[in-house]
Amino acid sequence: MTESDALVPKYYRIQRDLLDRIRNHDWLPGAAIPSETDLCKQYQVSRGTVRRALDELDRQGLIIRSPGRPTIVNTPKIPLLSSGFRTDIAKKGMVPGTEVLTIGYVKAPLPIAELLDVDQGVPVLAIERVITADGVPIIIETAHIARDTQPIEAQEVKSRSLLELIPEKCGVYLTRAVESYEPIRLSASQARLLHCRAGDLAIQDQALLFDSDQVPLYVSTAVVRGDKARILTETSFNVHR
Amino acid sequence: MTESDALVPKYYRIQRDLLDRIRNHDWLPGAAIPSETDLCKQYQVSRGTVRRALDELDRQGLIIRSPGRPTIVNTPKIPLLSSGFRTDIAKKGMVPGTEVLTIGYVKAPLPIAELLDVDQGVPVLAIERVITADGVPIIIETAHIARDTQPIEAQEVKSRSLLELIPEKCGVYLTRAVESYEPIRLSASQARLLHCRAGDLAIQDQALLFDSDQVPLYVSTAVVRGDKARILTETSFNVHR
Repeated sequence: MTESDALVPKYYRIQRDLLDRIRNHDWLPGAAIPSETDLCKQYQVSRGTVRRALDELDRQGLIIRSPGRPTIVNTPKIPLLSSGFRTDIAKKGMVPGTEVLTIGYVKAPLPIAELLDVDQGVPVLAIERVITADGVPIIIETAHIARDTQPIEAQEVKSRSLLELIPEKCGVYLTRAVESYEPIRLSASQARLLHCRAGDLAIQDQALLFDSDQVPLYVSTAVVRGDKARILTETSFNVHR
Repeated sequence: MTESDALVPKYYRIQRDLLDRIRNHDWLPGAAIPSETDLCKQYQVSRGTVRRALDELDRQGLIIRSPGRPTIVNTPKIPLLSSGFRTDIAKKGMVPGTEVLTIGYVKAPLPIAELLDVDQGVPVLAIERVITADGVPIIIETAHIARDTQPIEAQEVKSRSLLELIPEKCGVYLTRAVESYEPIRLSASQARLLHCRAGDLAIQDQALLFDSDQVPLYVSTAVVRGDKARILTETSFNVHR
């Protein structure tokens, strides 16, 4: 043990070591890692220390623990570009699927009305769908549109990116998106749609999309499973001088 | 009650109504809302229905419930532009503060080494700080740099944006950032730094920053309190045709 190692808590070194072994594919996703008893022997530490290391890996979503069953390595999270989840799932070699839940008018709830700059309760078109990757539900996406549109068919909502479909049906171009990311716990109904448990972690990605007159066209609210995906964005900087 | 209202669960109408009253500032942030008993009388519903509506508002971070004390309206989340948290806090009229935790070399952990394209364990410069808004800790920001830099003083880390400081000290320009957002639960040590409880919700915003040669310059990992802030990004689209 080197001098600097002595300053690091035992559980942390074990956590680091297990993490390295996962990242180095000593254990592949879905494979069982050694039992707590085996890890205690291997690292010559108490069960409490091993548990603390496993707690930390669990918190980071790297392992899945179930009572009475071996602890297994989790599948890595799918990195999804926020500019078109469906397209990005296909690009990553997975099969994207869409379940259309709603296409119809609803009374604008206050938060949506505020964003779209319309009065609360006016009819807005709501489109709600669940996006799957290789059959696993990953995202609940809801769009609210406060414009006249050409008719939108379920088949179109099933097969196309809303980022393309909605502007086309409204006859405008998108120029700008302002997105807001917050961590949420899934409600019971969201959990049902995503095959999760109520209270599980998700990111809520709410985007407000503007047309070329800088008028809000629609709000998209995506609830993305935290255990299966993370959201990616890319930004370019203007280099000064 | 209109026909369509009959289709909406009772708790949901109460939740909507309470939400409207919060958004309309009937109750300001910090103010107590009526007790469960009062809400039962007011809406003529059971305590279970009122609780379900309150559970939902709680889950959305709109109210704060504490045992034996009145339920109060939460302060709205601070929307923070991901391109410079410190600067954005100041722009919003709050006083930004910085507590510098670490400036020094550490052995690159595997996930950081992979992102920076260096070998695991090579020394990388780690800068860790807590960013506050009006004295409230909001963000733990950690940067890992795998380059020679001019000396970086604590005072500079305290007062400047790392997005400006790090390229300057390395003598390069940033051209691109790839950011990844995931929901996490705070660890005990993160919770201590942010004055939260272990397990509370946060967003982890990990950015990889590239120089003009498209070589990774540094990784920034920001852990942002979910109860106090949400992260904003802006994107412009190229209009085709």
